[in-house]
Parts: sequence; structure tokens; C-alpha cells
Amino acid sequence: MRTEEILRAARAQGVMIATAESCTGGMVAAALTDIPGSSDVVERGFVTYSNKAKIEMLGVSPDTLAAYGAVSEVVAGEMADGALAHSAAQLAVSVTGIAGPGGSDHKPEGRVCFGLAMRGRATQTETQDYGAQGRAMVRGLARDHALTLLLDALTR
Amino acid sequence: MRTEEILRAARAQGVMIATAESCTGGMVAAALTDIPGSSDVVERGFVTYSNKAKIEMLGVSPDTLAAYGAVSEVVAGEMADGALAHSAAQLAVSVTGIAGPGGSDHKPEGRVCFGLAMRGRATQTETQDYGAQGRAMVRGLARDHALTLLLDALTR
Repeated sequence: MRTEEILRAARAQGVMIATAESCTGGMVAAALTDIPGSSDVVERGFVTYSNKAKIEMLGVSPDTLAAYGAVSEVVAGEMADGALAHSAAQLAVSVTGIAGPGGSDHKPEGRVCFGLAMRGRATQTETQDYGAQGRAMVRGLARDHALTLLLDALTR
Repeated sequence: MRTEEILRAARAQGVMIATAESCTGGMVAAALTDIPGSSDVVERGFVTYSNKAKIEMLGVSPDTLAAYGAVSEVVAGEMADGALAHSAAQLAVSVTGIAGPGGSDHKPEGRVCFGLAMRGRATQTETQDYGAQGRAMVRGLARDHALTLLLDALTR
């Protein structure tokens, strides 16, 4: 199972993980902590559903939010960087998207942006367009993709 | 569905909600944000899996942690109070427990402490002993109980 692999790889490398979630609302952190003994790897999680929370908890720039919108790779990158800066973790993943129903701010339903930050490496961002598959499906796919990004970062 | 009732009641009263989760690791926030339109009610969530996170994100006292342990009503109360103090929410629920397998610090597997803080009211705490039902079951019961506490606070 992907989650167990993440925990095993992180533990072997002495890496602690933090999460910064908007549209998945805690699902990535919940998946990581499904596994017994995850407390030595999962350092903390930020559920930054509001823009105010993104700014206050993660240090996302209000100017960035105004210029690009919450669902953007720039914001995803700032969220992941902020999760590292505001935790004792060495690896952080972020998720911000439009789970639906409906799009917003001229962005399509199902668009999700991700950020991955690791100390000593350049922060990566990417966008997935899952389309209008329904809120639960988009959130599930986004959670799984965030876990994949963590595993890739730990095993490449 | 309980989650929809919570959102409806909170919205009607202009109340924003914050969560502070240890053993449920984001499951309460994830459940609240399952519902479309939850962004006008769910302000932010703190996944404070480590003691360091409880102290830094929520202002839980290191002395309290040392004296009572992380799984205690005193810590649950400080977590809920801290979630209010560190957010724009008017209502906060906290969860800290031993999902298992195994107990710890002379406390039994399945023990979960909850806190409920609402601006203008005294903070409540309580303990549920779910026993050794397995990690997934204990976490699910704890999530559901936290949601019940939120609904009770909004409807009583």
C-alpha cells in the first residue's frame, strides 16, 4: 500500500512529513495517519480551507492569491514552502483545487494544483485536470496523487 | 446526514468552525469538507500529530503535556481553546486519543479525549473509551463523536 511505503521510506531516511491541504480538507493527513506508528513520520498538517488560513498558517502571499487565485501552481508552491517553514518537517506536499460541483474564478471544475517541497531541493508544482467527475472522486484522486508525489520524492 | 446538519446550523448562525486533531489525523476536517459549499463554514484545521505541533500550532502547554500526557481532557481542552485562539472560528472541536494498536503511557487502547470550545461559553471536555476495536474503528468512532459534539453545540 502506498501509504505504508511512504512511511517506511521516510522513516529509513529520517524524514518527517507535513501536509498543506485545501480542497482535500485533511484527507492526505488522514491517509498517512491510518497506519499504526505514523507518529514518527507525520509531523503536522495544515487544513487551510480559507484564504485567511493559507495566509496566516502558511505565509501564502495575499498578493499571490489576488493575482493567481487560490487554485494555482504559484499558490500550491507557496503552500508547500510554507508547510516546511512552519513545521519541523523536511518534506511537504500541498493540494489546492476545485472539487466541485461547479468551477470558479474562470477555472474548471476538477482542476487541482499540487506543490512538493523538500529541504535542499527546488520546490515542484503541477496541475491535474480531473474534470467534472464529482466532488468525492476528485478529492480521492487528488489525495492519491499527493501521496504519489510524496512517495516519488522519497524514492527517486 | 450529520455533516450537512452541522454546516446548515453553523451557516444559519454565522458560525465558522475549526478543528484540532491528533489521533483522527484530519478525518474530522475531511468529513466537514466532503460537503459542497463547506468553505463558508470550515475556517481551518490543525492536524497536530506531534506534541511539538500541539505546542506550536495550538499553544498547548508543555507542562500540561508532561503532567497529563497528550491523551487527556486537559490537553483536549487546551487544543480546542487553542484552535479558537489561532483562527477566526467561533466553534472548535479537538480530538486526542490512542487509536492503537496498543495502549501507551499507562492509558488503554481506544481511549479518546475530546474538547469543545465556543466563544462566550465554557470549554467542555470528555473522554470516551472505545476499547481495542482496531485502529480504523476507533478513529471512525472518534470522528463521528467529534461531529456529534459540533452538532450538539450548534443546536442546543
